[in-house]
Formats: sequence, C-alpha cells, structure tokens
Amino acid sequence: MRIFERLDELYAIGGGQGANRRSGSAGEQRAHDLVSGWLEEAGFEVERDSAANLIGRLRGTRPDLPELWAGSHLDSVPEGGRLDGPLGVLGGLEAVERIGPGERTLAVVAFRGEEVGCIGSRARVAEIGELPGAFVELHIEQGPRLEHAGVPLGVVTAIVGYSRQTVTITGRVGHAGTTPMDNRDDALCEAAERVLAIRNAARAIPEAVATVGVLTVAPGGVNVIPGSVSFTVDVRAPDRGRLDRLLAAIGLETGVGVEPTVMDATVVDAVKAAIASLDVTPLELPSGAGHDAGILAAAGVPSAMLFVRSLNGGVSHSPAEHSSDEDILLAVDALERTLRDLGSV
Amino acid sequence: MRIFERLDELYAIGGGQGANRRSGSAGEQRAHDLVSGWLEEAGFEVERDSAANLIGRLRGTRPDLPELWAGSHLDSVPEGGRLDGPLGVLGGLEAVERIGPGERTLAVVAFRGEEVGCIGSRARVAEIGELPGAFVELHIEQGPRLEHAGVPLGVVTAIVGYSRQTVTITGRVGHAGTTPMDNRDDALCEAAERVLAIRNAARAIPEAVATVGVLTVAPGGVNVIPGSVSFTVDVRAPDRGRLDRLLAAIGLETGVGVEPTVMDATVVDAVKAAIASLDVTPLELPSGAGHDAGILAAAGVPSAMLFVRSLNGGVSHSPAEHSSDEDILLAVDALERTLRDLGSV
Repeated sequence: MRIFERLDELYAIGGGQGANRRSGSAGEQRAHDLVSGWLEEAGFEVERDSAANLIGRLRGTRPDLPELWAGSHLDSVPEGGRLDGPLGVLGGLEAVERIGPGERTLAVVAFRGEEVGCIGSRARVAEIGELPGAFVELHIEQGPRLEHAGVPLGVVTAIVGYSRQTVTITGRVGHAGTTPMDNRDDALCEAAERVLAIRNAARAIPEAVATVGVLTVAPGGVNVIPGSVSFTVDVRAPDRGRLDRLLAAIGLETGVGVEPTVMDATVVDAVKAAIASLDVTPLELPSGAGHDAGILAAAGVPSAMLFVRSLNGGVSHSPAEHSSDEDILLAVDALERTLRDLGSV
Repeated sequence: MRIFERLDELYAIGGGQGANRRSGSAGEQRAHDLVSGWLEEAGFEVERDSAANLIGRLRGTRPDLPELWAGSHLDSVPEGGRLDGPLGVLGGLEAVERIGPGERTLAVVAFRGEEVGCIGSRARVAEIGELPGAFVELHIEQGPRLEHAGVPLGVVTAIVGYSRQTVTITGRVGHAGTTPMDNRDDALCEAAERVLAIRNAARAIPEAVATVGVLTVAPGGVNVIPGSVSFTVDVRAPDRGRLDRLLAAIGLETGVGVEPTVMDATVVDAVKAAIASLDVTPLELPSGAGHDAGILAAAGVPSAMLFVRSLNGGVSHSPAEHSSDEDILLAVDALERTLRDLGSV
C-alpha cells in the first residue's frame, strides 16, 4: 500500500537507527521535499509559508468557504519512531485525495519543528495567519490507553496543560559511619518521601500525571549522608482546575505553566461520529503531549485530534513505536469521514 | 597552652580553608617534620619506618617489657578539621612527657595516610612488624553521641564493620505526559521505596547504620519516566551478626565487606577506669569510622580508643569540627592515666 511505502521512505531518511529528521536538519528538509513532490503529483497546489511550513491545497469551487486542513509534522526526535508526525501528513493526503475536489478547499499541512516546541504552527498562528476554518490532526497515541481499552481509535478532548518546577531539599551532611540513624537529617530520605507523595497525589486526580525525571544528590559520596537533593517535577492535567489541584497537593506553585487546551466540540463530535460509523466505540482521552493541533486550537481554530492505537505499551520517541497496518488504514478511513462531514457545505 | 598552639600550627599548614594535609602531600610531610622536631626536643628517640610512619620512643630501663604506644595520624582530608588525627598524636606526646621515663618503653606514633585507608598502620602490621604490647588512640568522636549524652569522654568498644554495595533498579522508560499513573513502572518511585525501607531497617537494629549517598537516575529527562536508578548503600554495624542481619533485611549480599573489630577488654577497661577516675561516667560506644587502632587490633595488638566529645552535632571532615579546650585537656588527663595504668609493670 502506498501510505506504508511512503512512511517507510520518510523513516529511512538519514539512515541509522529510527527516524532522524530533527527540526532544521537536512532530514526534515528532505521529508518536506518528498511530501511536496507527492502533493504535486496528486494535483495539490503547494505553498511554503515564511516559516517553511508546507501546505498542499486541493482548491474548491467556493473560495468564500473557510478552508479545512488535515496534517501534522515531519520532523522527529533523534532516533524517533516511524509514525510520530508523518502519519498525520500522509493520512491527510490519502484522505483528501479520496475525497477529491469539491466546493470547499481542503488542504494537507506539514508543520515545521513540532518536536522542538511546535515552532512551525506557532509561527503560522502568530505572525503568518491565514488560518483554516477547522483543523484535524491524525497522530499515533504515544501512550497505552487505547491498547489497554482494546480500541483502535480515539478522539482527543483536550491537550493537557503542564508545569515544570524544581524542588530543592536541604538536609545536613554527615558521616555515614558516625552519625546514628536517629540523629540524621538525610535530604535523600526526605526527597524519597516527596517522590512517593507526588506519585500518590497524581494517582488521586483523574487524568492527571506527575513525574520526577531528574534527581541529583549532593555531595554524592558513598559514605556521606546527603545534604541536599534537587529534583524536577513535571505535572500535567487536562484542565487548569486539576492542574492547580495537583500542584497544590504536592506543594508547588499554582497558576503557572502552559494552559490546558480544550478541543472544539464540533470537530470532536465529527471525529467521534466518523469513528462510530466504522463500528468502533470512540474512546475520548486527553493528550498528555503537546501537538500542533493544540497550538491551532489555542489560537481559535476549531480543532481536534484523531488518535490511533500505539502498540508495545505506548512506547514513543523510539524505533519501537508501532501501530498495526490494520489500525492505520482504519484511522485513514475515519479521517476521510471526518473531513467529508466537516467539509460538507 | 602548648597543645593548642601546636594543634593550631598543624592546622595552619597549607593555608586556605581547614586542614590541608592530604596523604602523601607536602602538608603531611611538613606535619611529620614538625612533630618529629617536637619529639626530639622532648628527648624522644625518633624512628621513621619504611612506610614513613613516625615513632617517638621514650626508652624504658627494661627492654624485655613490651612497648606501649599512643598515637594517631597527621594526614587530613581536604579542608578537614583541626583535631582529626593530630589530637591523638599531640595528646600522646603530652601524656607520655608527663609520665616521663620509666621501666617500660612508651612511644608516640603518627601513622601515615589514615584518611586514604590507613595505609601507614596497615604497612606497619603487615610488612614491617615490631608491634607494641598495647596501643591507645585518642581521637575526636566525629559523631554526636557524647554531645547528646552530655558526656565529655567515651571508650570505643568496637570499630564497626561495613559493606558497600550498589543496587540497580530497572523500570520502564515512558513519556511523562502520555503514560497514565496506573501504567507506569517508574524506577525512581521504586528506588524511593527502597531508600526508605533501608532507613527503616537500619533504625530497627541498635548501633547499625545504612546510608544511600549516591543515586543516579537514567535517562534523566524532565519529561521522561525514569527507566533505571542505581544507588550505593553503605551498611555498618559493630558485629558481623548485626551487619548481616541488616544486609539481609535490605536485600543485599551477606557475609561480605570489612569485618567489625572488637577492642581489647583489658585496654578498654583501662580507658574506662581512667575516665571514671576523673569523675566522668565513661560512655561505651562503637566507632562508626575506621581508625588506625582498628588496624592494630585486627592484627592482634591489644588496643582501644578514647573518644573526646565532638561539638556542632558531630560534624567532622570539615573546618566546623570542634571540641572544647576543656574536654581536650580532660582527654589528655584520661590518656595519661590510661598509659600509667597499662604501663605499670
């Protein structure tokens, strides 16, 4: 099938292990050139905006109607997965080609630099403008929820907001041999209690997560009781209420960080209806990672995301990232139906 | 007082912050040269053995009697304390000078490189030989127990044995945003539970301690669930039974590490009697750190240690290490009485 051949062709760029198309690299440019060629072959009108985003339009007969976009990004993390980004672009191309020219202009978009803070979609909504009437992004889930639910497709209801903060705990350095257990102020023991309290607080709030990913111990001697420990906390939740509730529960500053973004009800409903029409029960879930759809939604473009089931426990940003061919084809069908629904005049 | 002037003179070597007489450095050599001069001034016969240990003898009239040694070391950790080592050497010199020549040969010894694994005393007991009939080491406690008990002097009953082991915990790397809390195998959370379990196990065994001083998290990304954590555990106890009990309780290998060394009952009793004669109730305690007295004891030399109270919570290996002048003078008195008792024919 053409979509799989093309996914493989993008995945092979740069050689080596996994996807290697870092933002701004020759690999990302090569991917844009390939997709641009495929868009032109299929009769799309190709625009490269001033942020080097790629927009391929299938012009409609009624330029008065707002455009409808589908897409994602083509850059990757180093040694990334095969589907993260390209699936949304190539799935959009398949779906729009199947629909063919009509009254409304349909477009397939590939944003730049999603993995480095969505720089392409941010530039588009900020300086460039000319935004569509709606945007749908097909993406691999990058998590285990669809796999656990036994469901191939899901619809994203919100992009979680997050706050990243650093905690420093101060104890008292001491000699590991000469300081009795009842006379210690061990910063690592206190940090261990905090790490577990953070986990427990996050477990108590639905759809919220908190992660301690970096932790450093000072002075860091085998025979020295730790005098201070610093660690990072990454806290996420689908709305500000839950985000602040979790931040407060673990003693962090509230009201800060990146705001959660709720997806547009009309576009979400269109995705749900499309999934249901394929005899799949659509699972609603928040996206724990940021996406270009979140940037467009925050800028007022009615947006939603269609998630396809990750296998291998949801591993992502890794060559082990995987979805089945069957699920991918089902996702393209759902995307096609979503665009037909939203694009109907 | 002369002992304080001399402590200050040794402390000033190398300039800068704290004591700076690392093993093998010009600072350690300078300290040996100074003490050698003071020994000669006082009429001691000075030996430098093949490991560069310094032994100053006040010859007795009966060379058939085993020698009696007092002493410690002159090297320091970088930016160390004023008393750790020199107190035992200079205290020994004061005490032996006061006793003066008699039937038994008394000696003051300064071992090399105590802070780097007791290399001087190890060389003496291993290759060099010519060991005394008994050895008494006066040393600052380097811990808070005498301070907490409100007692200026203590006698060491054992040098704790210890085992240092490394634990590696393997979890599963995951995306901090997309992996729900109930689907994580977070190596840091498991490590935090282990750190607290280690603390609790050590608390349950009298005189035992366990310390996690080094802990590293991989891959160590703010937004990445830790996939593995390695940490060190330093476990100590005054006898093999308690050491193995604690090692087993925290899931570590038993029967390994450095054996505890029990001090000689006769020498311990002499120290206790000397302390008691000064109207101080002698506190018996294990030493959580290694000392030259432990090396001599393990080699069969009847040995014990006299501890003087640390102030400032027992801080050591730091310029904040401190004992009061009053306690130091009391300790020299106790050492003198101990040597008189042990040296009496």
